Amino acid sequence: MKRNLFITFEGPEGSGKTTVLQKIVERMHTQNIDVLSTREPGGIEIAEKIREVILNPAHTAMDERTEALLYAAARSQHFYEKVMPALNEGKLVLCDRFIDSSLAYQGHARGIGIDEVLAINEFAIGKRMPDFTILFDLEPSVGLARIQAHSSREVNRLDIESIAFHEKVREGYHLVMERYPKRIKQINAAEPLEQVVERVWDILTDFLDEKK
Amino acid sequence: MKRNLFITFEGPEGSGKTTVLQKIVERMHTQNIDVLSTREPGGIEIAEKIREVILNPAHTAMDERTEALLYAAARSQHFYEKVMPALNEGKLVLCDRFIDSSLAYQGHARGIGIDEVLAINEFAIGKRMPDFTILFDLEPSVGLARIQAHSSREVNRLDIESIAFHEKVREGYHLVMERYPKRIKQINAAEPLEQVVERVWDILTDFLDEKK
Repeated sequence: MKRNLFITFEGPEGSGKTTVLQKIVERMHTQNIDVLSTREPGGIEIAEKIREVILNPAHTAMDERTEALLYAAARSQHFYEKVMPALNEGKLVLCDRFIDSSLAYQGHARGIGIDEVLAINEFAIGKRMPDFTILFDLEPSVGLARIQAHSSREVNRLDIESIAFHEKVREGYHLVMERYPKRIKQINAAEPLEQVVERVWDILTDFLDEKK
Repeated sequence: MKRNLFITFEGPEGSGKTTVLQKIVERMHTQNIDVLSTREPGGIEIAEKIREVILNPAHTAMDERTEALLYAAARSQHFYEKVMPALNEGKLVLCDRFIDSSLAYQGHARGIGIDEVLAINEFAIGKRMPDFTILFDLEPSVGLARIQAHSSREVNRLDIESIAFHEKVREGYHLVMERYPKRIKQINAAEPLEQVVERVWDILTDFLDEKK
């Protein structure tokens, strides 16, 4: 079976994608599938250093284009140093967030433009797009409620603003999916976790079977 | 006179552009021209931090696309935080190296491609290209000889390789000039310094007079 495929998990915080990805990887291990699970910056020193520059709270004046270029730079290094070598060894690679996050968050929600953010990210990865992507679709209010269930504070004004922003992120993801209807498969992330895991497992194994 | 113009100086090391730029700025000051002289990263904290990541000798494994994106990111922050505010105040801005350096060095000499490097740099500066550019053209061997006149060592194998690389940089600059024949004016940087200063002064004042 052809395994050197690059699969990404996308969706908002609270959509369960990280937890689901872990469970999928565990199940793949029991089936002896040679899989690498990763996320940016993924322990790659240069990418970690770039993230430090992005996340440094002293850098309040960072231009949004600078930020987008830095995310693309970190993506590039993680991709060439970790993802590509694994693919070249014949591994299946599952990555938690990739190019579509930049398109939805920075391209659409922050208003830079999906085409423009796509251009710098295509440069970053030499146009090697993921082979397949699972989009965890969720109402922002549901995602917010899930995140809050894990903390003890109440909903505040910033959370409301955050919902408006996350509505735009969701809209952005939908626009990206319209652009890549064959690559991106959307699932309903509002279902219970175990059900989502089964759904993702079925979709992934169908995709892998097609690639046999 | 309209002064909020953005002028860049380009060319290889040893071409004298930095020295000439200083002399031009001094002369402008005596004529009460409100000029800002700068170069990347130009004391802009975020841009300086990005340069530290690029120049960190521990980062030997840096992918050339990551490097190009980091240069573009530093350019973006320097541009929005230092160049644009000065232009908005009506200042004339002279910048030692800008987008054409990336096109010649990374786009052509390193082989990434001028179009590709142009795309990420247009993103970085919102397509606000320089209004005028002076290209200091020089035989690489002459530049090398000038640099060595300031040190005591002999020519070694790396210098020879470096000449081949700098031939490609020069070729890259010429390709960029063909692309922007109106914006870029080439001067012969092999002439004596004082002569080059006079030549640049004449070209610049002609350009500024046109923009009156």
